[in-house]
Amino acid sequence: MQNNETQIAVLGGGSWGTALVKLLQYNNIKTGWWIRRPEQQHRILTQHHNPDYLSHTELSPELLFTTTDLNELLWHNPLIILAIPSAYIDSVFSEIPVDVFSKSQVISAVKGIEPSTQLPVHRWLMERFGMDPHQIGVIGGPCHSEEVVMQRRSYITVGVSDPALGKTMSDLFTTPWVSVRISEDVEGIGMAAILKNVYGIVAGMATGLRYGDNFLAVLVTNMIHEMEQVLRDLTGNGRSIQASVYAGDLLVTAYSRFSRNWMFGNLIGRGYPVPSALLELQMVAEGYHAIMALGTAEWFPLKQYPLLRAAHRIIALHQHPETVFAELRNALV
Amino acid sequence: MQNNETQIAVLGGGSWGTALVKLLQYNNIKTGWWIRRPEQQHRILTQHHNPDYLSHTELSPELLFTTTDLNELLWHNPLIILAIPSAYIDSVFSEIPVDVFSKSQVISAVKGIEPSTQLPVHRWLMERFGMDPHQIGVIGGPCHSEEVVMQRRSYITVGVSDPALGKTMSDLFTTPWVSVRISEDVEGIGMAAILKNVYGIVAGMATGLRYGDNFLAVLVTNMIHEMEQVLRDLTGNGRSIQASVYAGDLLVTAYSRFSRNWMFGNLIGRGYPVPSALLELQMVAEGYHAIMALGTAEWFPLKQYPLLRAAHRIIALHQHPETVFAELRNALV
Repeated sequence: MQNNETQIAVLGGGSWGTALVKLLQYNNIKTGWWIRRPEQQHRILTQHHNPDYLSHTELSPELLFTTTDLNELLWHNPLIILAIPSAYIDSVFSEIPVDVFSKSQVISAVKGIEPSTQLPVHRWLMERFGMDPHQIGVIGGPCHSEEVVMQRRSYITVGVSDPALGKTMSDLFTTPWVSVRISEDVEGIGMAAILKNVYGIVAGMATGLRYGDNFLAVLVTNMIHEMEQVLRDLTGNGRSIQASVYAGDLLVTAYSRFSRNWMFGNLIGRGYPVPSALLELQMVAEGYHAIMALGTAEWFPLKQYPLLRAAHRIIALHQHPETVFAELRNALV
Repeated sequence: MQNNETQIAVLGGGSWGTALVKLLQYNNIKTGWWIRRPEQQHRILTQHHNPDYLSHTELSPELLFTTTDLNELLWHNPLIILAIPSAYIDSVFSEIPVDVFSKSQVISAVKGIEPSTQLPVHRWLMERFGMDPHQIGVIGGPCHSEEVVMQRRSYITVGVSDPALGKTMSDLFTTPWVSVRISEDVEGIGMAAILKNVYGIVAGMATGLRYGDNFLAVLVTNMIHEMEQVLRDLTGNGRSIQASVYAGDLLVTAYSRFSRNWMFGNLIGRGYPVPSALLELQMVAEGYHAIMALGTAEWFPLKQYPLLRAAHRIIALHQHPETVFAELRNALV
């Protein structure tokens, strides 16, 4: 695709932000890229790779314009892809005026809950900046960033209520190895992306506790079932859970040993106290913040969902994983 | 459980038969065990383990009675657990009279299709021996035999139309680490066990073809979806596919590198011709016989199911896996 007219900016220099920029570069799209740390920006422009994430991926500086001035970047780009961990977005946007997105559309590629408001990121955008539903979108997987830059077959589903925005997103991110699907289920996709990170932690815990493949398969089956219940309770019917962006994204998280959420859960299952596991990981496990927020958010009926409640008991209430799993076993279908 | 009154026999000395015998021994149940090869029988009685399968598992000879006379064993035991690979059952029973099960109940632990009649094993039993539905049952997983004998948490679902038979099976096979569920969905469980072996082959092919985790997750999601369709088309609604015996058993097969079906598919994906892959494996891959039979069985509308059709094109029609998967990619949801 040749399109240098779209004014698009990606926010965030993590692995997912880097992978999305790489896809845009493949399609020859000039991209604004906000990266918090100036030295990381500098390395990308001079050495043509992100030193901290996906560092083997070559990036073309001639297709990038970077600035340390987030406010300016936002005003100049009507299409924003948000790829900043949910724990930091409130502080990153702290000095950004409320009307900055009045003529923009923002796609959340973040799979989490903003801690201070306890809202999913796309909901936080609407609340914080007074945005309308047609201005908002979400990106779902399954789409491990490592495989995306390795050009292995991957799937992105974009949830949008504005069909024109869906068409734009499809044009921007489709490559020979990445299929982009468009869905109207913004709320469901946003929520599924949050849940699968928590479920990824639970899967890691099971393996850390030395449960085997038989148990894991039953556990993951129950995750699919529970995810369907949560989405139905929060947003009604109208989807098949057996689609790539729901069950598929859950499977890749629950079965991947490379997921940060899985590793975090695995450490806890092996006996690490939660604070030590967080320290050991040295990376953000989105599922950690998600379950902490879901446990107290007024809009979320945590008690109805045995797997999420188990995660909360272990992570937030520091109950013993062995005990919680021994009880959980009997609740599985 | 203390119950030396139940007269039960297990047929088959493979790993699944051995694991089922081990569970019965844990519950102190005297068991008839038919094993085809006399030297294997002898080793079990003298050295207290099966030399060919799960050979680290100790077996108590005082709880076993063995005979090479299958006919006699069948007449003396009103409850039979059938764990002989589907490809061999017709020849094993070739000289057994048609009324042998007139007063018996038979549970099929075999996950396949009998090749000469192209019927699922529980259906073959009914046809070959004129058995009624209440005399028949099926055992489903997810229940890798290796994990069962390692005492790792596992799940068995027994499909029966006779509730008393369900109760007996639960009493016989429940242990502190094995949960037994009872279901009335004999047809659905029997068919799901057949399908998951074919899907296990397809999952192995994907990895053999060097597709990554993102693709595999989408592929497996589509398998769950397609399995639900097949079961609905063949036997109607009335089940949640997101239960351990359907989606759970599929997951453990699709994600396990130790499954024979997965290995068979993996070899084919890596470029082995089908006959070489069969030779290399030196073990029965149930899914191979299943897809060969499903491709020609009159009762099965193979063309309606993209994933099963892809497996058939590669395995039975010897089409190139690369080509078939390239087309399949576009059919995934």
